[in-house]
Amino acid sequence: MSSAAPRPLAVSLGDPAGIGPEVIAKCWDARNEFGLPPFVAIGDGRSIAAVWDGPIEVIDDPRQADYAFDAALPLFQLNSAEEDRPGHPSVAGAHCSLDSLEIAVGLARSGSAGAVVTGPVAKEQLYAIGFQHPGQTEFVAERCGVSAGNVVMMLAGPTLRTVPVTTHLPLADVPRNLTSALIESRGRAALRGLQRNFAIAEPRLAVSGLNPHAGEGGQLGMEEVEIIAPAIAALAAEGWRVTGPHPADTMFHESARAKYDAALCMYHDQALIPIKALHFQDAVNVTLGLPIVRTAPDHGTAFDIAGQDRADPRPMAAAIRMAAESAALRAETP
Amino acid sequence: MSSAAPRPLAVSLGDPAGIGPEVIAKCWDARNEFGLPPFVAIGDGRSIAAVWDGPIEVIDDPRQADYAFDAALPLFQLNSAEEDRPGHPSVAGAHCSLDSLEIAVGLARSGSAGAVVTGPVAKEQLYAIGFQHPGQTEFVAERCGVSAGNVVMMLAGPTLRTVPVTTHLPLADVPRNLTSALIESRGRAALRGLQRNFAIAEPRLAVSGLNPHAGEGGQLGMEEVEIIAPAIAALAAEGWRVTGPHPADTMFHESARAKYDAALCMYHDQALIPIKALHFQDAVNVTLGLPIVRTAPDHGTAFDIAGQDRADPRPMAAAIRMAAESAALRAETP
Repeated sequence: MSSAAPRPLAVSLGDPAGIGPEVIAKCWDARNEFGLPPFVAIGDGRSIAAVWDGPIEVIDDPRQADYAFDAALPLFQLNSAEEDRPGHPSVAGAHCSLDSLEIAVGLARSGSAGAVVTGPVAKEQLYAIGFQHPGQTEFVAERCGVSAGNVVMMLAGPTLRTVPVTTHLPLADVPRNLTSALIESRGRAALRGLQRNFAIAEPRLAVSGLNPHAGEGGQLGMEEVEIIAPAIAALAAEGWRVTGPHPADTMFHESARAKYDAALCMYHDQALIPIKALHFQDAVNVTLGLPIVRTAPDHGTAFDIAGQDRADPRPMAAAIRMAAESAALRAETP
Repeated sequence: MSSAAPRPLAVSLGDPAGIGPEVIAKCWDARNEFGLPPFVAIGDGRSIAAVWDGPIEVIDDPRQADYAFDAALPLFQLNSAEEDRPGHPSVAGAHCSLDSLEIAVGLARSGSAGAVVTGPVAKEQLYAIGFQHPGQTEFVAERCGVSAGNVVMMLAGPTLRTVPVTTHLPLADVPRNLTSALIESRGRAALRGLQRNFAIAEPRLAVSGLNPHAGEGGQLGMEEVEIIAPAIAALAAEGWRVTGPHPADTMFHESARAKYDAALCMYHDQALIPIKALHFQDAVNVTLGLPIVRTAPDHGTAFDIAGQDRADPRPMAAAIRMAAESAALRAETP
C-alpha cells in the first residue's frame, strides 16, 4: 500500500497431489514468455520438487519475492504432515491446501500481496476435513467479510466474459431458483466488477434469456417476460447499460461479443459452454465483489494426469496475468 | 438418376420479403469464390430483381440449370399474387414461399434435383395460411413419407456438428421430456446420418449430460444416471461408437471436438450455443433421416435488414456447398 511498486502476487499451490504445483512451476519457467510479474508460491515445496527440478528459493516475507523472482521460484514453505505422491490425494494434503489458501488470502488482506491466485483444490478431500464452504470462492468471501451472496464468479477470456446467475444446480431446479432479485444482484456485482477490476467506466452487460430464442415472446416460456426483463429494467433504471433478454445462441459470435463487456447468463452451462469453447486455454475464473483481487485457472486438480508433465500451464498463467492487471488497475483508481 | 453428372440443386427462395432472395443471388455472384455447383432458384423472380440487378434466366426444367448457370442465375419462376416489398411480409408471399418449398422438395423427390436447400420462411405468416407443421423440417419429412419423430436436425460447421435431442421447449420442460428412448432414436438417426451424408463409416457420437458437470455422479441431478447413461449403453450394445455423458462445458474446445464426429446435446441452447459461437458464418442446418438431402442456412428471414444489401451470403453458400457434397457422397454409396 505504501510502496508505489506493484506488490508480488500470492499463489496458493492447491492440492499438493494435483497439477497445481506443476503448472505454477511451469509458469515460473515461462515467466518471460507469458509476461508474468513476480509472485510467491504458497504450499509444500516437496510437491513442486516431485514434479519439477528448477530452482526454488524459500522466503518468509512476500516482499522478498521481487528480488528472488529472477533467479528462482519464490516459495512460502508450508510443511504437510505427509509427502503426497502426484495423483494420490490425502487428508494431510487437504490440510496443507487449506492452509496455503488461508495464508494467500491473509497476505492479500494485509496488503503484503497484491492479489490472490488460487491453485485447484479437491473439494471432496476438503469436505472430509470439515471444510464448510461450497468452494474456494465462498471461503475467500468469508475471510473478506463479504456475504457469499454478494460475490459473483466471472469467467473472463480475451474476447468474452460471462457470469452465471445460478451455478451448481441441477438443470431442473434452475427455473424455480431464478428471481428478479437474484439477477439484479448478480448483474450489479458484475457491472461493479467490470468497473473495479477491468477499469471499464461505463460497462455494458448483455443478459441472456433462459429459454430457446429467449422465450419467443412468451411462446417458449414465460421467465423472460416475468423475471428477466423486469430485472433488466430495474438495473437500467439505476443507470446501468444493460440489454436483453437475448437469445443465448446468438450472443457469442464475434460481432455479438463486441457489443457488450460481459454476458450475464442464467445457468452454469449457458455461461461455461461459450467461454470454454472459445477460450479453453486462457479463461480465468475471477471473483468479483471482494475487497481484494482473486483469480483462479478454470480447471480442477486433474489427478489423472498429475505428475506426468502433461499439465498445460497456460490457464494458470492467464490467471496470474489477469490478477496482476486487475490489481494494478485498482491501485490506480483508489 | 440416369445421368452420371451431378444434378443441379433446388434452392427455394423462402419468404420473398426476407433476405432469402438476396443471399441466393449473392451466392450466384460469388459462385466461383464460394466453390458452388449449379443450382436453380425457385420462387418469384421479382423478389430477386427488387434487391439485385444481375442476370436471371428463367428455366422450366432443372436440367437446363447446368447450361444456364455460367451466365445467369437459373430461376424456376413462381408468380406471387402480390409483389412483396423487402421487409414487408404478406399472405401472398407466404403462399409463394410454401409453393417454392413444395416444388423444391418435389424436384428432389423425383430425382430431377440432386438435393434441396431451403431459404428462410416466416413461420407466423405460414401459420396464418394454414401451415400445420412446426417448421420446414417437419414439412419436408412428411413429403418424404418419414415420421417427423424419425428425422433429426443437425447443425454442421467445419469443426463441429451438434444434434439437439429436444428442440423448441421451454427450459423447464426439458428434463421431463428427456427419455432414454428419445435419446436413442435421435442418436441412431445422427449416427446413420453421419454415415449417409458425411460418408463416415464408423461415426463417433459424444453425448452430453443435462446438468452441470454431467451431474457429478448424481450430486447435481440424476438424469445422467437414470436416463442418459442407459441410452448410451443401448446404442453401444448395437455396435455404435458412443461416449458420455460428458460435461457439456468441456466438450467443445478444439482438442475435445477432435474426439467425435457429432455431439448429441440434450436441449436447444446446449447444441446451438457452441455451434454459433464457433461457426456463426458457416453452420448449416442439415435434416437427417430423409431419403433426400436437405440443408438450410441457420438463420431466419431477417426482415429488419431485408432490401438493404446487408445480408451475409456465407451461411447460404455453406448450405449449398454441403448439400452438393452430401448428394455426391450418397450417389457414390448406393
